[in-house]
Amino acid sequence: MSTSEPSTILVVFDLVGIFVFAISGALVAVRKGLDVFGVLVLAGATGLGGGFIRDVLIGATPPAALADWRYLLVPVAAGLLAFWYHPVLGRMERSVTILDAFGLGLFCVTGALKALDYDLGVAPAALMGMLTGIGGGVLRDVLASRVPAVFRGELYATPALAGAALVVAGAQTDLPTYVIAFAGGGLCVAWRLVAIWRHWQAPVPTGPASV
Amino acid sequence: MSTSEPSTILVVFDLVGIFVFAISGALVAVRKGLDVFGVLVLAGATGLGGGFIRDVLIGATPPAALADWRYLLVPVAAGLLAFWYHPVLGRMERSVTILDAFGLGLFCVTGALKALDYDLGVAPAALMGMLTGIGGGVLRDVLASRVPAVFRGELYATPALAGAALVVAGAQTDLPTYVIAFAGGGLCVAWRLVAIWRHWQAPVPTGPASV
Amino acid sequence: MSTSEPSTILVVFDLVGIFVFAISGALVAVRKGLDVFGVLVLAGATGLGGGFIRDVLIGATPPAALADWRYLLVPVAAGLLAFWYHPVLGRMERSVTILDAFGLGLFCVTGALKALDYDLGVAPAALMGMLTGIGGGVLRDVLASRVPAVFRGELYATPALAGAALVVAGAQTDLPTYVIAFAGGGLCVAWRLVAIWRHWQAPVPTGPASV
Repeated sequence: MSTSEPSTILVVFDLVGIFVFAISGALVAVRKGLDVFGVLVLAGATGLGGGFIRDVLIGATPPAALADWRYLLVPVAAGLLAFWYHPVLGRMERSVTILDAFGLGLFCVTGALKALDYDLGVAPAALMGMLTGIGGGVLRDVLASRVPAVFRGELYATPALAGAALVVAGAQTDLPTYVIAFAGGGLCVAWRLVAIWRHWQAPVPTGPASV
Repeated sequence: MSTSEPSTILVVFDLVGIFVFAISGALVAVRKGLDVFGVLVLAGATGLGGGFIRDVLIGATPPAALADWRYLLVPVAAGLLAFWYHPVLGRMERSVTILDAFGLGLFCVTGALKALDYDLGVAPAALMGMLTGIGGGVLRDVLASRVPAVFRGELYATPALAGAALVVAGAQTDLPTYVIAFAGGGLCVAWRLVAIWRHWQAPVPTGPASV
Repeated sequence: MSTSEPSTILVVFDLVGIFVFAISGALVAVRKGLDVFGVLVLAGATGLGGGFIRDVLIGATPPAALADWRYLLVPVAAGLLAFWYHPVLGRMERSVTILDAFGLGLFCVTGALKALDYDLGVAPAALMGMLTGIGGGVLRDVLASRVPAVFRGELYATPALAGAALVVAGAQTDLPTYVIAFAGGGLCVAWRLVAIWRHWQAPVPTGPASV
């Protein structure tokens, strides 16, 4: 379970998750009319931001993404791809959303596991898992000067928190890590996909907003 | 004065301050029409953000709030309360503002003391005290995509800086910590309450803004 | 090349860079109609933000600016100057832009050198150099609730990345540090000045933005 020598398959999963998130960040930049540099930065911030925020908060600096050039190359590739082929990618929005659910599931698992590695308690570790999943999207929206999408109706954070919580709970048992990881990631992905499919929304406050 | 084993009374004060700040964050989220998750995140960011920013800057990671589940429970409780009862809370705005002044006074003191514990000099420690007090509100407004309220006219940061500076100055003497803390916190709270009462504003630039 | 005992000339350069950046931040605050505190905070965030972000990411906490009161005094002085004399400074915009290019050149060099000191690889160190140069401006714009200017057309980040990359490449040779620093900083400044003079823009995506 050590994150210092992650297995090849975990690195591949991680890079795929970063790639998908980076595409979503780059598409937001294109729609905002930003230049090529803005596209690359939003791609990088979305793909790597969640891990950066987690690593800075738990004291795991420098973040892993700064110690491995592949983690920097992937968002650059995603950003350039979106810069040139955004009309095509924009039409594949639904596919991007579905891949994004897998990225979310992956990040909530790796985030929770890393927080446990750094001796955080169960509630903070679950929170860090969720934050790893949603942090990139929040940073993307802050840099694009808009209220983070994850705060506005879409059921996105709850699946990430549920998946991370299941990982943290499983880590208290004797189950092997890969079982825990698949259970937690599977729960997050399944919940998120059903939410997309059925247009589930998070509840909003009722009654008149006080001014 | 060690922050590793804070006294019960200090923890209670801290949790009250977090609660009040979290309520103010949750009310902003309700007014922005965010969903329940956005309300909880803005509650947490406002209640804990100042301490997080301070701890990340002085290298005290993971932040204390991630090592103690009570610090996570309080903003969740405040967020849910605001989610359900925001019409009532909105009418109690003045009470919230007054309680907020006490939260500010508390945070500027604990922030300055913790920075001194981490061997910062007098000017940076006073700055960290102020940042602990105002950081949560700034993070709340950045996440809500609006210019931080603390930059626009209300006399809010100056009392926090004054209180923190008094604490830092007092720490150079032989006075016991609780005396310093009460003096600094009291100065901040009194100044802030008078500012609310007399509608004191921070000065704005005069003359035409160059374009 | 140790950053723990920087030479006097380097400190002077650094303070000049912080001053120029702080002026630009303060002018944005004045135009937004913020109060004196908002002006000071935007001055500080712009002048010191790039270094703060770099130091937090590479784990060099507390940031150098919190260990040396001169680093705090300079943005305060710049902020007060802009608060009182903004009509004059606004008319000197072109001079400020040119000085800003020198600040950028300086920060990309010191940022890359510090990242190398902290054992980052070549690609991350070049990225940290660029981030040190542009981070303050990005933080300024996030706090002022607008899309960062560096993402919108102006050729600003590329010179910083090029300068930082040259520094990182030079550090692999036996050349003395001051030669590397002047080469990298000179490349960044020259490129940026030509970009200002010839109105070079970064490319923007072509074709209809998908919605």
